[in-house]
Amino acid sequence: MAFLEEDRLLPYDPGARAVARRLYSGIRNLPIVSPHGHADPRWFAEDQPFPNPTQLLVTPDHYISRMLYSQGVPLEDLYFGDARKVWRIFASQYYLFRATPTRLWLDFAFHNLFGLDKRLAPETADEYYYAITESLKQPEFHPRALFERFRIEVLATTDSPLDSLSHHVTIRESGFTGRIIPTFRPDPVVDPDSANFKENIARLGQITGADTSGWQGYLSALRQRRSEFVALGCTATDHGHPSAATADLDRDSAARLYSKILSDSGTPEDRELFRAQMLTEMATMSLDDKLVMQIHPGSFRNHNASVFRRFGPDVGADIPVPTNYVQALKPLLNRFGNESGLTIILFTLDESTYSRELAPLAGHYPCLRLGPAWWFHDSPEGMMRFREHTTETAGFYNTVGFNDDSRSFISIPARHDVARRVDCSFLARLVVEHRLDEDEAMEVAVELAGGLARKAYRL
Amino acid sequence: MAFLEEDRLLPYDPGARAVARRLYSGIRNLPIVSPHGHADPRWFAEDQPFPNPTQLLVTPDHYISRMLYSQGVPLEDLYFGDARKVWRIFASQYYLFRATPTRLWLDFAFHNLFGLDKRLAPETADEYYYAITESLKQPEFHPRALFERFRIEVLATTDSPLDSLSHHVTIRESGFTGRIIPTFRPDPVVDPDSANFKENIARLGQITGADTSGWQGYLSALRQRRSEFVALGCTATDHGHPSAATADLDRDSAARLYSKILSDSGTPEDRELFRAQMLTEMATMSLDDKLVMQIHPGSFRNHNASVFRRFGPDVGADIPVPTNYVQALKPLLNRFGNESGLTIILFTLDESTYSRELAPLAGHYPCLRLGPAWWFHDSPEGMMRFREHTTETAGFYNTVGFNDDSRSFISIPARHDVARRVDCSFLARLVVEHRLDEDEAMEVAVELAGGLARKAYRL
Amino acid sequence: MAFLEEDRLLPYDPGARAVARRLYSGIRNLPIVSPHGHADPRWFAEDQPFPNPTQLLVTPDHYISRMLYSQGVPLEDLYFGDARKVWRIFASQYYLFRATPTRLWLDFAFHNLFGLDKRLAPETADEYYYAITESLKQPEFHPRALFERFRIEVLATTDSPLDSLSHHVTIRESGFTGRIIPTFRPDPVVDPDSANFKENIARLGQITGADTSGWQGYLSALRQRRSEFVALGCTATDHGHPSAATADLDRDSAARLYSKILSDSGTPEDRELFRAQMLTEMATMSLDDKLVMQIHPGSFRNHNASVFRRFGPDVGADIPVPTNYVQALKPLLNRFGNESGLTIILFTLDESTYSRELAPLAGHYPCLRLGPAWWFHDSPEGMMRFREHTTETAGFYNTVGFNDDSRSFISIPARHDVARRVDCSFLARLVVEHRLDEDEAMEVAVELAGGLARKAYRL
Repeated sequence: MAFLEEDRLLPYDPGARAVARRLYSGIRNLPIVSPHGHADPRWFAEDQPFPNPTQLLVTPDHYISRMLYSQGVPLEDLYFGDARKVWRIFASQYYLFRATPTRLWLDFAFHNLFGLDKRLAPETADEYYYAITESLKQPEFHPRALFERFRIEVLATTDSPLDSLSHHVTIRESGFTGRIIPTFRPDPVVDPDSANFKENIARLGQITGADTSGWQGYLSALRQRRSEFVALGCTATDHGHPSAATADLDRDSAARLYSKILSDSGTPEDRELFRAQMLTEMATMSLDDKLVMQIHPGSFRNHNASVFRRFGPDVGADIPVPTNYVQALKPLLNRFGNESGLTIILFTLDESTYSRELAPLAGHYPCLRLGPAWWFHDSPEGMMRFREHTTETAGFYNTVGFNDDSRSFISIPARHDVARRVDCSFLARLVVEHRLDEDEAMEVAVELAGGLARKAYRL
Repeated sequence: MAFLEEDRLLPYDPGARAVARRLYSGIRNLPIVSPHGHADPRWFAEDQPFPNPTQLLVTPDHYISRMLYSQGVPLEDLYFGDARKVWRIFASQYYLFRATPTRLWLDFAFHNLFGLDKRLAPETADEYYYAITESLKQPEFHPRALFERFRIEVLATTDSPLDSLSHHVTIRESGFTGRIIPTFRPDPVVDPDSANFKENIARLGQITGADTSGWQGYLSALRQRRSEFVALGCTATDHGHPSAATADLDRDSAARLYSKILSDSGTPEDRELFRAQMLTEMATMSLDDKLVMQIHPGSFRNHNASVFRRFGPDVGADIPVPTNYVQALKPLLNRFGNESGLTIILFTLDESTYSRELAPLAGHYPCLRLGPAWWFHDSPEGMMRFREHTTETAGFYNTVGFNDDSRSFISIPARHDVARRVDCSFLARLVVEHRLDEDEAMEVAVELAGGLARKAYRL
Repeated sequence: MAFLEEDRLLPYDPGARAVARRLYSGIRNLPIVSPHGHADPRWFAEDQPFPNPTQLLVTPDHYISRMLYSQGVPLEDLYFGDARKVWRIFASQYYLFRATPTRLWLDFAFHNLFGLDKRLAPETADEYYYAITESLKQPEFHPRALFERFRIEVLATTDSPLDSLSHHVTIRESGFTGRIIPTFRPDPVVDPDSANFKENIARLGQITGADTSGWQGYLSALRQRRSEFVALGCTATDHGHPSAATADLDRDSAARLYSKILSDSGTPEDRELFRAQMLTEMATMSLDDKLVMQIHPGSFRNHNASVFRRFGPDVGADIPVPTNYVQALKPLLNRFGNESGLTIILFTLDESTYSRELAPLAGHYPCLRLGPAWWFHDSPEGMMRFREHTTETAGFYNTVGFNDDSRSFISIPARHDVARRVDCSFLARLVVEHRLDEDEAMEVAVELAGGLARKAYRL
């Protein structure tokens, strides 16, 4: 079976493969540094067993639901069906995932975690379901046990400023020594197009005791929440804006804009300008509290209106759009671009920007770093394109290693393993083409596997 | 000679090549499914011998005329010159086509069809001309004989709603059993920027007996013509718009827009909006008559004003432009995106949209499928990029196999052969990198060679 | 050490490597044709030894300064520091350049020119500094001696219309037989956004004796300067505009626009229109004096406002932007696109235009040719992408071979060597995949190494 092969994803040329194997063997067992993802802190606070295979692996994974939906499986079946029946549907459609990263991640977990070594298919669906269900009951499959088994050095979750962080507090107080830290993602209170934006602002006021009806109170509420996140180990913020637009308004204009948005929501342009200004405000705060900024722009969220009405966000209907960075980031960079105390990590869903905009920007501005291949591009071909398009201009050291960005805890080791294999393949090609010596490649591999993430995210 | 090699286009690594050979040997002789192209139905209605090599291979091929023109060969010489002289010019410039798909297609035909095994060059020009001329006289080189020899299972032509389809009728009535079907391409009567648009509308009225001076009569004329196409085996429509813009106007606005365009042609924005609306109208009709829609946007037609004045369209001066799908298709997708009874096949000339827009869209919406690498990208590198950029997000099963899109009947087997070889190369790489098992790759190869086209085009 | 390897950059598959070696051995020693670059003619006029290693290799190279700056090295240290100290900083940060073209170019020079065969690192910094310093004192390292040693057949510099060309005159009168020619780069007097634009126009009037306060005088001043450039061997102009916009105004509108710009600078749109018109004016003049035009659009110059204020242009803060060619060039192409007496060479920093716009344009218009992979893309991966994305549509013969575009004289042989190796790798792959015969590949390799440049640039 392909997914059992020691050499999967390594180059198939024997010379390059030998180099790649040596590099990979030097990093495969390094601890996992996971500075950006969507694990639920409740898992580790409560440490309850995961439910059945369907709820663990299928339902929450928008990579899976969108592919099944694209081929005619009703979302109703997936989201409201009987768990065992949904699993059978999934198994019967598993061939759709051929050559996708989902297949790699799942096969890795099936084999390495659950010891399954036949291919998932209609004939093996029930056997899989039974085996995974049985495993999940065992103590060594409980969340904290898996955290340790996965050799996770640090795991960052993604959290709203409206979140009490109670699960993080519980984890800390529980005596569990795994390092799990929150990430400050203020979209619900800085993006006026968020669901329930005004209610969110009011709630931010309640939580912090600040008067968020005015600009200064609003900013101080954000500052306060950031400090509370920092107290629980947070080292980074995350910003999922539609575009990378930034602005640098004077104080009065910003205050007026905020009032306008709170009173009548403003025009779409007002709301875009507000988001843009808030990135600069966040950077201002980061200069004080040292939180690293992550900017994840360029996704048209909830493109399918009917699916959004029926099933809400994050079910696979977010579609990338062309994204500009050079003009968009200029206001923020004019103000803070040369601050070496600031780190801004840029992500993209528009691969045409890798060599055209992102690598040149990160290859110049001291505050900028490139996040890894993201979302649709978090795949063997996508990761390889990232390296091929960015390395010659930005080098390796303006990148930040790997983010698993995972909503599925189970898939974290698989994702890091894919990234490590792809990076070793890229490096091996450089070595056999005499563009890099093998000792240098080994150093770089170690950095890519964790070192750069530790530095960029101040972990 | 390169073009005689059994292993051409297969990977050069021995391990991958062995896998690719096995995959290719499993599909090389499968029948040809050609759901989109520009063969002339007259060829099969009349079954007359093709004229000389120049008129068969050089003059009608805009890939050839543009390359010769780019290097200074006057179009007058090509289009109005003596056939034998033009052939000599072509032979003397044949080196220009090194590493282009034109070279692959022609060499394939030269060798496999005409048994020529020296390279075309000034020294061999006359020998080629003589040999091809002699062959074309033989009965086994007449169109219907070639159709059978090429093992074509089905061949779709591309036809105007103003076409009487008389050649298709003749073919049906002739007793020839080859399956040749029309495709409904309404551009001349739905794109107000088409040559003679108003005359076309009037003519559509005459043909159908509908009153095309009004919106309802116009729509019913289109509906009627579609049903006549369906009666002759048509399963698809084709739309060659400048952009992928769609609209969803209410009935009255649409009717007013139609009147405006008919009376004073409207503004460029009106005409764009009309085309956009017509895609949605076509989708509405497709829900009834089940015709699959093909959208081929993003070509700036007749970019060279002087060449267009002198030589008309389709001589190699169409240039791709950046193309947006995410916002452009939203009105149509809002209305029909979740209809599993509708199939819309998207093509692009803007490769930056493969991973950014098209694969995510097709990987979600049940009605969407991805057409193969098109036109300038219908080439070994172009096809490989298509697979590399779309597969990880859309999978194989949201694609539709190969379209030869050919204006040259002779080149059809060559084009399918190139596609099959490139797909086997891609699959072989997945196998040797342990991303797919070989039995799965074999299944996929068979689908890509014909199965997916049969399903998507309802053949 | 990687940089000593005979096979660097050649394919690692033994079969392809063998072909690549044969191709490369056929061209590695061909003379260097350098039709576009930024060598300083003073070097050859004065023939003085180059100063220390830092001023030779580090300070003037914006590839180096931007990378060091991106990782926190203050530009003050680089530009104003003690030469030996700067060299040590550079050596300590040399690992940042892993897998970048800078590393390839420098290692090539270190080894081939200075005989250094350890890796540059903190431990070897002083040894390097000493060895290079000693070498530079030797007569065989003086500029003219290196020119001959590098086997440069022709070297084009880039010169302002305000330049007296005195160094070029001196070279001619010196008896030195190396062919060094100027290139007419009129940006300072045709781009109203240039620093000191109005002073430049006035100075152009002084130099030529023409009345540059009016449109006709301005045009005749340009014509005069072009003819003076031609007299010193110039065969080309170069245009570094922000976009590829062209215009074709009537004479009166153009004259009025010129007056407006001279009087009140005009709006940004006026200035863009003026640049656009000037490309068409330059083309008009080229039809007379046969100068080949080079258009280098799409760089956002001096993106970092603070760095520009402190250090001026060309320190690594120019960032590419999305660039359109299809609509932008239409006015110029409408007027002159079919002139076979005109040659316009197009460059891009936006790789998404290679297959979408540039190859289709150059594969049709007789006046258009494609410049090589440029600036950020002048690298092994970048060059390979250029070939992969342009060859199938434009062929090899609508490209112009290699430009080193170098500001560092020392790096010229290294850059040509990289280009030759990458081209041989690309060609070798075509050969082993049976897409091209080896004798054809050898012919193409020779053209790419010099022949196409000679033809396109009329050298």
